[in-house]
Amino acid sequence: MSDTAIYRTQGFGQELGFGASPGLVIVDFVAGFADPEMFGGGNIADAIEATVALLAFARQQRWPIAMTRIVFAEDGSNGNLFTAKVPGLLALTEANPASRIVAQLAPLPGELVVDKRLPSAFFDTGLAAWLTQKEVDTTVIAGCTTSGCIRASVLDAMNCGFRPMVISDCVGDRAQAPHDANLFDMKEKYADVMTSHELYRALLRRDGRATV
Amino acid sequence: MSDTAIYRTQGFGQELGFGASPGLVIVDFVAGFADPEMFGGGNIADAIEATVALLAFARQQRWPIAMTRIVFAEDGSNGNLFTAKVPGLLALTEANPASRIVAQLAPLPGELVVDKRLPSAFFDTGLAAWLTQKEVDTTVIAGCTTSGCIRASVLDAMNCGFRPMVISDCVGDRAQAPHDANLFDMKEKYADVMTSHELYRALLRRDGRATV
Amino acid sequence: MSDTAIYRTQGFGQELGFGASPGLVIVDFVAGFADPEMFGGGNIADAIEATVALLAFARQQRWPIAMTRIVFAEDGSNGNLFTAKVPGLLALTEANPASRIVAQLAPLPGELVVDKRLPSAFFDTGLAAWLTQKEVDTTVIAGCTTSGCIRASVLDAMNCGFRPMVISDCVGDRAQAPHDANLFDMKEKYADVMTSHELYRALLRRDGRATV
Amino acid sequence: MSDTAIYRTQGFGQELGFGASPGLVIVDFVAGFADPEMFGGGNIADAIEATVALLAFARQQRWPIAMTRIVFAEDGSNGNLFTAKVPGLLALTEANPASRIVAQLAPLPGELVVDKRLPSAFFDTGLAAWLTQKEVDTTVIAGCTTSGCIRASVLDAMNCGFRPMVISDCVGDRAQAPHDANLFDMKEKYADVMTSHELYRALLRRDGRATV
Repeated sequence: MSDTAIYRTQGFGQELGFGASPGLVIVDFVAGFADPEMFGGGNIADAIEATVALLAFARQQRWPIAMTRIVFAEDGSNGNLFTAKVPGLLALTEANPASRIVAQLAPLPGELVVDKRLPSAFFDTGLAAWLTQKEVDTTVIAGCTTSGCIRASVLDAMNCGFRPMVISDCVGDRAQAPHDANLFDMKEKYADVMTSHELYRALLRRDGRATV
Repeated sequence: MSDTAIYRTQGFGQELGFGASPGLVIVDFVAGFADPEMFGGGNIADAIEATVALLAFARQQRWPIAMTRIVFAEDGSNGNLFTAKVPGLLALTEANPASRIVAQLAPLPGELVVDKRLPSAFFDTGLAAWLTQKEVDTTVIAGCTTSGCIRASVLDAMNCGFRPMVISDCVGDRAQAPHDANLFDMKEKYADVMTSHELYRALLRRDGRATV
Repeated sequence: MSDTAIYRTQGFGQELGFGASPGLVIVDFVAGFADPEMFGGGNIADAIEATVALLAFARQQRWPIAMTRIVFAEDGSNGNLFTAKVPGLLALTEANPASRIVAQLAPLPGELVVDKRLPSAFFDTGLAAWLTQKEVDTTVIAGCTTSGCIRASVLDAMNCGFRPMVISDCVGDRAQAPHDANLFDMKEKYADVMTSHELYRALLRRDGRATV
Repeated sequence: MSDTAIYRTQGFGQELGFGASPGLVIVDFVAGFADPEMFGGGNIADAIEATVALLAFARQQRWPIAMTRIVFAEDGSNGNLFTAKVPGLLALTEANPASRIVAQLAPLPGELVVDKRLPSAFFDTGLAAWLTQKEVDTTVIAGCTTSGCIRASVLDAMNCGFRPMVISDCVGDRAQAPHDANLFDMKEKYADVMTSHELYRALLRRDGRATV
C-alpha cells in the first residue's frame, strides 16, 4: 500500500477550511535565508517572489500581518539547543544585516515583527496572544524553510487553535526532498495546503466577488 | 549538491551530546497505534519490541520515566484542530482499550502517564515542569509516529531546553518514507539520533562500566 | 498618598471593555472547595450561589463554557511544587468526590471540563486553544479562590489575549483580606471587575434588550 | 479565626527548601520603575540597594543570572491587554532610557537580559528553557513590583518547576499594602520567602562555610 493510501485508510488529511477571520504570518524571510551562501538556496527565492503578491493581497484585505526574524543577542547569552545544533544561527544578531526582513516584504507600521530564537513563530514569542487580540482564527502561512520553521510554526498554529493554511508556492526550502516530505506531513495531519492562486480564488469566491 | 551536502555546507547537524541527567519519554505506544487496523502499521511493532529493552535499561538506571497517551473526552468536548484533520483520534477516550499503553510497556507506580490531545508530549501537558522538578536535562525519546508525535515531541524537548536523543530503532511509523524524512530533519536541526545499542554503549562507557 | 491615588497618578486601572464574543470560565467550584473543612470557607458558598444565575445566563446567551477542577493522579506521580507548598491538594484525585464540580453547577454535554494541577485555568491545560477555536475574545470569570486560582487564571487570560472580566460576587475566598487585596490588584492591572448584575445590564444594554 | 489560622488549618505554607542548583532572576529593576514620577515609589529604591549585595553574592557563587526589562516596539505594534490596562507602559521602548536596567545592577556579558511585555519573567520569554539548559532548579527572585511582576514571575517559576525563593528585602512595590498582601499569598501558596541575610546564612551553612 502506498504512503498516501495508508493515510487515506486511517482517515487522515481532512480539510479544515477557512474560519471567519484570517491573518498572515510570514516566517523568516530575512536576508540570511534569502542568501544561498548563508542559510538559503533551493526554491526560497521563488517563494519570496510569490509572497510579494500574497502580502499585497493581505494588506488589501486588511488582515493582521506578522513577520518573524531569528535574532540572537550580540554576546550570545541567549543561545540555546537550536544554536547548539546549528551554530551559524548565532550570527543572526540585531546588528547583522542578515537578520533584516528582505526589502520587497518590508513591514509597514502596525505590522508585527516577531523576534524569535526557535523554529516556531509561536513558541515563547507572544504571537498567539497578538492574533487572539486581533480576533484572528485562521493563519495563512508563508516563509522558510518548509522543513524547519514553517513546519514548526504550522504545528504550533494548530496547537494554539489557529487554522493553519500553508501556501505551497510561498514556502521554500534549501533542499527539495525535505520541502516535499514536510508538505506531505502537514497536509495529512496539521494544515490545509494550497497555492496562492487557490487561496485568492477561495477567499474571493467566499466574499462574493469576481475571482482573480 | 545533495541535500546532505547542503546541510553540511551550512553547518547543520552538530552533536548535542548527553547532559548529566537523562530521562525517558515514551510517546503514544498505546494499543490503537500498535494496531495496523487503527493507527498503526509499518515498523511500529518492531519499535515497541526494541523499547522493551530500553525501558528496562532506563528503570535499571533509575531515570525518571514518562509515557504519553492520546485521550479525548467521551463527549468530544475537547476536540481540536488535530481531530478536525484526523477525526478518528476522537475515538481514543479513557473508556476505549485502544488508549491503553501496550502491556509490555505498562507503567510502574511513580512513572508519569501524560494524557495529551496534540502531537507533542510537551504542549499543554505539564511534562516540562515535571522533568525540571526531576532535574532531567536530556530526554531519551521512543515511541510513534516518527513523522508525527515523535517529531513534535523532539521539537518541543529542544524548545524547552531538554536535549533530545531520538533512539532510531525505538521510534516507528506507519509509513517508511515519512519515517526516514523526519529522522533526517531531526538529526540535522533538533536532536541527536542513535540506535539503542549506541545509546547503551555511550552511557555505560561514560559511567566507566563494561559495555553491553 | 493612598494606594489608589498612587495607581491613579501612574495611569493604572483603565477599562478593557467587552469584546465581541464572551465565554464563561468557572474555576474550581468543586466539592472540596465548597467544604470549609477541606479548602473552603469564607464567602465561597455565596459565590457558588451567585454563579448559578451566571451560568444560566451564559447558557441562555450560548456562550462557550469551561469549568476547571484540580485533579492529581491516584499514585501522586504528577505532584508538583504546588503540592509541595499545599500537600493536601494531592488528595484531589479522580476517585475522590471532593474533586467533583458542585451539583448546582454540573456541566452539560459539550461544556469543557478542564482538569488542572496548577492555580491557573490556562497553564498547561489547552484552555486557550479551545477558546480560540470557539472564537472567544473575552473571558467572564467566576470561581475560587480569589487570591489563588482566580488571580492566576485572570493573569493568564490577559497573557493569552482574552479580556478578563472578574465577576466580584461570583468569586470567593476562604479569607476576606486576600479576597479584597487581589480584587484590587486585578482591577488595577489585569482585568475589569464588576458584579454579576453590572454584567447582565452591560451586555443586555449592548444587545439592545431591556435590562434585567 | 485569623487568615493565617485558616491557612494553617488547611495545610498551606509548607517550606520548599533549596534545590541543588540556584539561579538569580532580577525582575524589572529599570530606570522607569526606580523613578517615583514614572512607575516607582514606595520601597523600590531600598529593594534595589539590597539587591546590589545579592547580585554580588550570586556572581561570587557563579549562579546563572537573568534580568528582565519591559520593552515595547517603538510603533506600539506589540501592545497588548496589559498596556490596555496600563497605557503608560507603551512608553517603555528600546529608545527610552527608562527601559534600561539601573546602573548599579548593570548586567555583565553572559548574563541574560530578558525583554518582556507581560508581568511574568517567564511567559513567552524563553527564560524557562534558558534556566533548564543551565540546570537551574531553584530561582532566587528579586525585583519589582511585589504585587505585579514579582507575583506573576513567582507563580510561573512554580508552574515551570523552578522552586521560587522570594527575597523579601530585595522586592519592592510602589504601595505597602499590596506589597504585604502579595508576600502573604506567595508564602502560603507558591514560594519560600526570606530576607537576603537568611538566604546567605542558609546557603553558606549548607555549603559548610562560615556564616556571613
